[in-house]
Amino acid sequence: MLDVKTTRLDLFDNSSYSPGPWVKRFLWHITNIIIFTSGVHISYGVKRSLLRLFGAKIGKGVIIKPRVNIKYPWLLRVGDHSWIGEGAWIDNIGEVNIGPNCCLSQGAMLLCGNHNFTSSSFDLQIDKITLEEGVWIGAKSIVCPGVTCYSHSVLSVSSVTSVDLKEYTIYRGNPAVEVKTRIIT
Amino acid sequence: MLDVKTTRLDLFDNSSYSPGPWVKRFLWHITNIIIFTSGVHISYGVKRSLLRLFGAKIGKGVIIKPRVNIKYPWLLRVGDHSWIGEGAWIDNIGEVNIGPNCCLSQGAMLLCGNHNFTSSSFDLQIDKITLEEGVWIGAKSIVCPGVTCYSHSVLSVSSVTSVDLKEYTIYRGNPAVEVKTRIIT
Amino acid sequence: MLDVKTTRLDLFDNSSYSPGPWVKRFLWHITNIIIFTSGVHISYGVKRSLLRLFGAKIGKGVIIKPRVNIKYPWLLRVGDHSWIGEGAWIDNIGEVNIGPNCCLSQGAMLLCGNHNFTSSSFDLQIDKITLEEGVWIGAKSIVCPGVTCYSHSVLSVSSVTSVDLKEYTIYRGNPAVEVKTRIIT
Repeated sequence: MLDVKTTRLDLFDNSSYSPGPWVKRFLWHITNIIIFTSGVHISYGVKRSLLRLFGAKIGKGVIIKPRVNIKYPWLLRVGDHSWIGEGAWIDNIGEVNIGPNCCLSQGAMLLCGNHNFTSSSFDLQIDKITLEEGVWIGAKSIVCPGVTCYSHSVLSVSSVTSVDLKEYTIYRGNPAVEVKTRIIT
Repeated sequence: MLDVKTTRLDLFDNSSYSPGPWVKRFLWHITNIIIFTSGVHISYGVKRSLLRLFGAKIGKGVIIKPRVNIKYPWLLRVGDHSWIGEGAWIDNIGEVNIGPNCCLSQGAMLLCGNHNFTSSSFDLQIDKITLEEGVWIGAKSIVCPGVTCYSHSVLSVSSVTSVDLKEYTIYRGNPAVEVKTRIIT
Repeated sequence: MLDVKTTRLDLFDNSSYSPGPWVKRFLWHITNIIIFTSGVHISYGVKRSLLRLFGAKIGKGVIIKPRVNIKYPWLLRVGDHSWIGEGAWIDNIGEVNIGPNCCLSQGAMLLCGNHNFTSSSFDLQIDKITLEEGVWIGAKSIVCPGVTCYSHSVLSVSSVTSVDLKEYTIYRGNPAVEVKTRIIT
């Protein structure tokens, strides 16, 4: 092919992205490894306090199981009584807002970063993720950058969405499609 | 919407679920972290003996690779010569029965827990998983609660099933669909 | 059923597969655990040097994030300026050739091993994987044995391919299907 452009990762430049002071990131990196990504069961209260110390807004009664990987707590909000399941990965290089009474199940992933694959320099693209009240993200499911999961929506096990989920609606597959309405009695 | 109910995780109550004495769970938690979820290659014989000590029924010649995560060994049976692949996750808050000559490949997951998403209190639902003789669960695949994979069925790589798999049949996708018959010569 | 054959994993025999001397494999196993699969952020230069010491061909500027799991570095080539994302799993019991300017995102998996499920002894099948220049394997995607991803192809997040990807083409799903052309400007 003539004139076809190629990817040039040596030209990649994310210098305009500043997720926080070096010292804070370093201290969190160590804390994340020792306390959060560890398999050891550590008191939920201790975890909540540490997250708040690093700038997260964490509601009351929030449960954070072992082996959870959080990128930057200062970009994280979790509402009252929400659960972060074992092995969940909150890759929040952008803002993640989790409402109250949400459940992020085992191994689920919230992914805030993407790349512009039409650009030779593969520019970083960051977007926030919002889970409104009562949302359930199933085990090993993935929510992509920019997505809002509206009130009480459900993403079934091992599903993937890069588009918004409607309120009180259940989705499944990759890409996830609407399967039925969620009725709570 | 009027009269729409919401999820209330503060009302969640799993007090009727008793997976075993506190001391046993604590000792297994530590053993699981040090010996099983570790990346270090440890003798299969040692692993089999430890699982049996904690109440698992483990057949002869069973192979358990590194980084395997097992919830409760006393709810686990594995038949002769079966393999548990690297990074497999047996989240057996309910019974898991794996027959002889089964292969659970790398990163596969057996998931015994679910939640009643039509209930405001998001009640825990537990169901057992059965893999009959010769079943193969492919890398990073997921078997959901209540499923029986009948004799020599195959769940292909990264597939998900929440329904039973027929004997000598190969399935693929999320949700997994039947793709062909398995003929062994 | 009459005359139906069964899987016999006790008859499995991979003695003809020799991935390298015991000492080398042991030393790499320890190095992989301490330096590569660890969550700790370690200098990319140190990681590149260690991989080369163990026989990998690693280009300049290659980035290897934390929690990367590599089976055998002596079966790995990575071209200039390519990235190996956090938690990527290169299960290269066969050769893996990654071209320059490739991106293997978080949690992606390159899988070189399979089993002959039509054989009673479940014979090991190994095949190489090739990623040509500028390929992007999305987060938590899986490339199966024998696949070539041609120049600048893209496998979207959490997708799975067991067939070759055409150049400058974007794929999604499990099994991944072609969704559009990749134009780089």
